[in-house]
Amino acid sequence: MSVTWTMKAVGLSVVTLSLSVELLFWLCRRLRPRRILNEVLFFPSDLACVEHIYNPNTCFCPLPHGVETSFSRLLSHILSASSSLDVCVFAFSNMDLSRAVLALHSKGVIIRVLTDKDYAAITGSQIGVLRKAGICVRCDTGSVYMHHKFAVVDNRFLITGSLNWTLTAVQCNQENIIITEEPHLLQPFIEEFHKLWVKNDPAKYYHSID
Amino acid sequence: MSVTWTMKAVGLSVVTLSLSVELLFWLCRRLRPRRILNEVLFFPSDLACVEHIYNPNTCFCPLPHGVETSFSRLLSHILSASSSLDVCVFAFSNMDLSRAVLALHSKGVIIRVLTDKDYAAITGSQIGVLRKAGICVRCDTGSVYMHHKFAVVDNRFLITGSLNWTLTAVQCNQENIIITEEPHLLQPFIEEFHKLWVKNDPAKYYHSID
Repeated sequence: MSVTWTMKAVGLSVVTLSLSVELLFWLCRRLRPRRILNEVLFFPSDLACVEHIYNPNTCFCPLPHGVETSFSRLLSHILSASSSLDVCVFAFSNMDLSRAVLALHSKGVIIRVLTDKDYAAITGSQIGVLRKAGICVRCDTGSVYMHHKFAVVDNRFLITGSLNWTLTAVQCNQENIIITEEPHLLQPFIEEFHKLWVKNDPAKYYHSID
Repeated sequence: MSVTWTMKAVGLSVVTLSLSVELLFWLCRRLRPRRILNEVLFFPSDLACVEHIYNPNTCFCPLPHGVETSFSRLLSHILSASSSLDVCVFAFSNMDLSRAVLALHSKGVIIRVLTDKDYAAITGSQIGVLRKAGICVRCDTGSVYMHHKFAVVDNRFLITGSLNWTLTAVQCNQENIIITEEPHLLQPFIEEFHKLWVKNDPAKYYHSID
């Protein structure tokens, strides 16, 4: 009888211990916060060739090659889009950023661009180029300036900051960009884009013919 | 002998179980991510009186009272500074934001303001007002535009986004602001401010008299 109890007690100890260890590992995996994307880029960016992002080893221009810069990081993040890209920027005249958006469009990524009504027509604006390629662009008409400078990639991460999508911003100004997957930051921007996109639907401008 | 072993085994079970429970609670506390500040504000802000932030129940202006808006949230975050406020903004002409900075200065909070050399002199700029009050202001001279729009409160959280510290930005434009304690976002901005602050030290402009 006492031997049976001893065996039961030892068995109980072993089971308790192994269950505890198992539970600990499970909890460690469950509670350890997943390391989410949180990156900051500052501008002006160092000058470097970004051709390698599209065509490796095909460029012989005099700019430095194979150098990672703030701008090449930004381009890579944008080009990582696989399903959707929502762009909401005040000024969009940077040809490299336009090329990235066009490349995604030709791969079948769904692009939506929301921009300021006045700055859509500035010298060198890429808005016409995007529209010509069949990308859906809407202009905000309800405010003095649609001054946002953000993009949402695959509804997965947010790119936002002070940087307009212009050459001066990238190469000459003190600017910042945050890239984050933090849901409490990302989700409000997804909702803001949706709100502005619906609000600026050009179908609403047409007069009823009934 | 067997009774002793039984007691030992039971004892071991109890100790293992209680230690496991203790460890689990400790791990839960340790691994559960602390809920850090992550807030997004969109503008234009609804119009409301912000006088109650300074003097409760003393204002009888026709604006709505006691209403929380994007702007009142922004003001409250800035006014929560207890030791330092580093402001790095392109354009600073908003009188309510200037009042908040002056109020902090008079409370002994250490204020540093970094701004753009050209926009420091725009109509209604508050830069002269801040300087007159004894607040240390430096102008960025090394880039086309010092286009940042961020502030760091007590080295504890970051305020950043598209919003210049102007009345138009607050009341008329589509703008965004992120407020975050996320260390991977905060720390680079603290370092960027330090870098620009040192770089634009006016003592460097003086010619040597040796």
